[in-house]
Amino acid sequence: MKLAENLVTIRLKLKNVPGTLGRALSTIGKLGGSMGNIQIIKVNREFKIRDLAVYVTTDKQVKEIANALSAIGKEYIEIISMKDKVFELHEKGKIFLSNRINITTFEDLSRVYTPGVAKVCKAIQKRPELAREYTIIKNTVAVITDGTAVLGLGDIGPVAGMPVMEGKAMLFKTFGNIDAFPILLNTKDAGEIVKTIVNIAPTFGGINLEDISAPRCFEIEKRLQAELAIPVFHDDQHGTAVVCLAGLINALKVVKKEMEGISIVISGAGAAGTSIARILLRAGARNIVVCDTAGSIYKGRKVHMNPDKEALAEITNPKREKGTLADVMKGKDVFIGVSGPNIIHKDFVKTMNENSIVFAMANPDPEIEPDSIEGIARIIATGRSDYQNQINNVLCFPGIFRGALDSGATTINDEMKMAAAYAIACGIEEEHLSEDYIIPGVFNENVHRDVARAVADAARKSGVATREVL
Amino acid sequence: MKLAENLVTIRLKLKNVPGTLGRALSTIGKLGGSMGNIQIIKVNREFKIRDLAVYVTTDKQVKEIANALSAIGKEYIEIISMKDKVFELHEKGKIFLSNRINITTFEDLSRVYTPGVAKVCKAIQKRPELAREYTIIKNTVAVITDGTAVLGLGDIGPVAGMPVMEGKAMLFKTFGNIDAFPILLNTKDAGEIVKTIVNIAPTFGGINLEDISAPRCFEIEKRLQAELAIPVFHDDQHGTAVVCLAGLINALKVVKKEMEGISIVISGAGAAGTSIARILLRAGARNIVVCDTAGSIYKGRKVHMNPDKEALAEITNPKREKGTLADVMKGKDVFIGVSGPNIIHKDFVKTMNENSIVFAMANPDPEIEPDSIEGIARIIATGRSDYQNQINNVLCFPGIFRGALDSGATTINDEMKMAAAYAIACGIEEEHLSEDYIIPGVFNENVHRDVARAVADAARKSGVATREVL
Repeated sequence: MKLAENLVTIRLKLKNVPGTLGRALSTIGKLGGSMGNIQIIKVNREFKIRDLAVYVTTDKQVKEIANALSAIGKEYIEIISMKDKVFELHEKGKIFLSNRINITTFEDLSRVYTPGVAKVCKAIQKRPELAREYTIIKNTVAVITDGTAVLGLGDIGPVAGMPVMEGKAMLFKTFGNIDAFPILLNTKDAGEIVKTIVNIAPTFGGINLEDISAPRCFEIEKRLQAELAIPVFHDDQHGTAVVCLAGLINALKVVKKEMEGISIVISGAGAAGTSIARILLRAGARNIVVCDTAGSIYKGRKVHMNPDKEALAEITNPKREKGTLADVMKGKDVFIGVSGPNIIHKDFVKTMNENSIVFAMANPDPEIEPDSIEGIARIIATGRSDYQNQINNVLCFPGIFRGALDSGATTINDEMKMAAAYAIACGIEEEHLSEDYIIPGVFNENVHRDVARAVADAARKSGVATREVL
Repeated sequence: MKLAENLVTIRLKLKNVPGTLGRALSTIGKLGGSMGNIQIIKVNREFKIRDLAVYVTTDKQVKEIANALSAIGKEYIEIISMKDKVFELHEKGKIFLSNRINITTFEDLSRVYTPGVAKVCKAIQKRPELAREYTIIKNTVAVITDGTAVLGLGDIGPVAGMPVMEGKAMLFKTFGNIDAFPILLNTKDAGEIVKTIVNIAPTFGGINLEDISAPRCFEIEKRLQAELAIPVFHDDQHGTAVVCLAGLINALKVVKKEMEGISIVISGAGAAGTSIARILLRAGARNIVVCDTAGSIYKGRKVHMNPDKEALAEITNPKREKGTLADVMKGKDVFIGVSGPNIIHKDFVKTMNENSIVFAMANPDPEIEPDSIEGIARIIATGRSDYQNQINNVLCFPGIFRGALDSGATTINDEMKMAAAYAIACGIEEEHLSEDYIIPGVFNENVHRDVARAVADAARKSGVATREVL
């Protein structure tokens, strides 16, 4: 994958005679290393120390380059250090806390701490709603994981998952100006997790559940929503559904079809697939068939069922279509994949209706190689940033929490999720929509603010806001 | 109390004719308001808007001033707003999170989040000790409270206690460069608190328990220390004890007495009193009598005892002295108060040995008005910042955690506490010691760094460090 390209900084001590640097560079070049900046760190009569930025595509190359450079001989070239850019950026972690006021005098101290702070405490004790004004609570979101489903890596444990949680916190800050703080859980028991989060909940204005494996994630989210009067949101489910809906709204505009009239196949009946089916129904879709590894899910199916799938069978597949994914894709308008790599073939896509839409969102490898259906499907989207039309959760969660916090929403309900999806879709003006531009990029200037406003507005209209947004 | 003096910013709309400002100022002055800065915010032909900084000593004055200004009449003077400086500083809370790296391009995103972050996760999964290098964990301390014993305010609840927790986090940052994050607990049950903290402990490099009422604080700290391999420290107990010992070490130098030879009375057998007795014994003191409301505690006392006091009776009061506080203060060298306001009389102090030392540390009102024993006691210290010799916890906790985190200490043991006390005491060179200068100020340039070094060194020597400090 191109974006996973490695940047390695190699610090070399090079003998100070003509040709030494050239020798190093050609050694690196022969092994496929592409040169970036070269900087001199130190020079004397005998040697020069230089930092070489080298781009490589695999970790194996790094070792090969190291070996080849070492083989030249220490008297000419010595490796002082090799630093992977990604690891370098992670040194000491990626987020930190700061004070809003500097403490340099006793007067400062007496105002932000004892004795001055006491009157702020007393005011909040008397009128708890003042905590919104005078503490960090209302702008603070917990990013909570037990480390059981981190990225595509699976159950790597909470501590190994911390770099993802810190990264998520960075995105909350960058795109939502929200202070998000990671909480790593020492337990995988759903009951314990719920109790623990309830016990620390007064600290936060919202709870973002992250990378908790199914089916526990459903139960945990549901119970927390029942117990807490602050927004609780499992991004892996709902974030994906919101952005998928946004993409589909715009894709339908391009192909000039209506949500009510189209037929949809969803591949994957897990957290994301279930959430996508529900939000599309809410958006007006009538004909959705969800498939799992046993084929289409229909009312009355006997194999591989569970309560979640039974519930899904009740609300989808109105014609009780039976068969494999290939069978049910015939004559459909839209394919949405949140399953696994390379599970559909371009011949399946050929059987779909004209102007077909394919969202192959499995990560990192989609359900079908997008290039292979160019010219077959009319619109193609994936979860990857190195293809057009990236269905990216980052478009949703910063704005949806910003809107919820600003409106003092007690939950994030369906109305707010729908509002977020439409706001994301509207991030591209209709005249600019095209087959390869159905969804705004995450660096779009306005999209996060627009999502926040729409969500706050929906919170107010649906009666879960506790505060007017100015 | 002088330091609790209020600064109020009054924004006035003043009729733009000569004499209006003077009228406002004299009104404020008559009611005891002292003027600070005066700033023009806006001017036009009809009016001037000005911000007046006014110092007052009571909240009542603020209301009186507001009433008097309003009485002048809106056509001359209109109050637009009145903001208390302390509340102003608390707006939006006092701490915030920041990103160490700006995210402005997809390349940035792919390095701090997916897909790049995956290799950092995998590296930590393989070698968990790398979490120290590549996450925030090792520099992050939780400041945890259930809000049951906040300052002198008592059980005001966790949310009303948040301003204190944020203030504490600021002090951790300012004096220890530690990222401290408040955690507010929704439960007062000791067992629940322990379980909750254990469940979120992987997030943190250390746990600072704050303002949790006795006797639950003892049990909670003890159980957490047994269950966790990171430092757990209840500052209200041990921080006070460490700084008290530091002050006493220097006070004894001034009066030329030895720890081993002196006799000490401690008033107060709660969290702080117990911890002080223990650390003084460890520092060499042999004759300590602890008093509670029932008088001196001795082995065999029948009334008002509990397991903690029984344990105290075993190790203190070697002569089994019986009687009231007044009785046992006779002939003692040192009085240490961690009890309540005005419970000793200057006549008690007169019965102490020559060159007596009085630490009256009850907050905000000490056991005796310090001015009343000037010339009777040789050395006087309090917990207040508006008297000489302030026994201030801020001298201890930032450095003790800094040292513990840097050395990767698995606990904060007695050796580390003793080291902290001696380092604080050494913050003043012996030649500069005097009756009114036995303890360094919290803004002392070196003291926090010196405490950290001494504590890390003690961790290493006592075998609880897991890492060499560079």
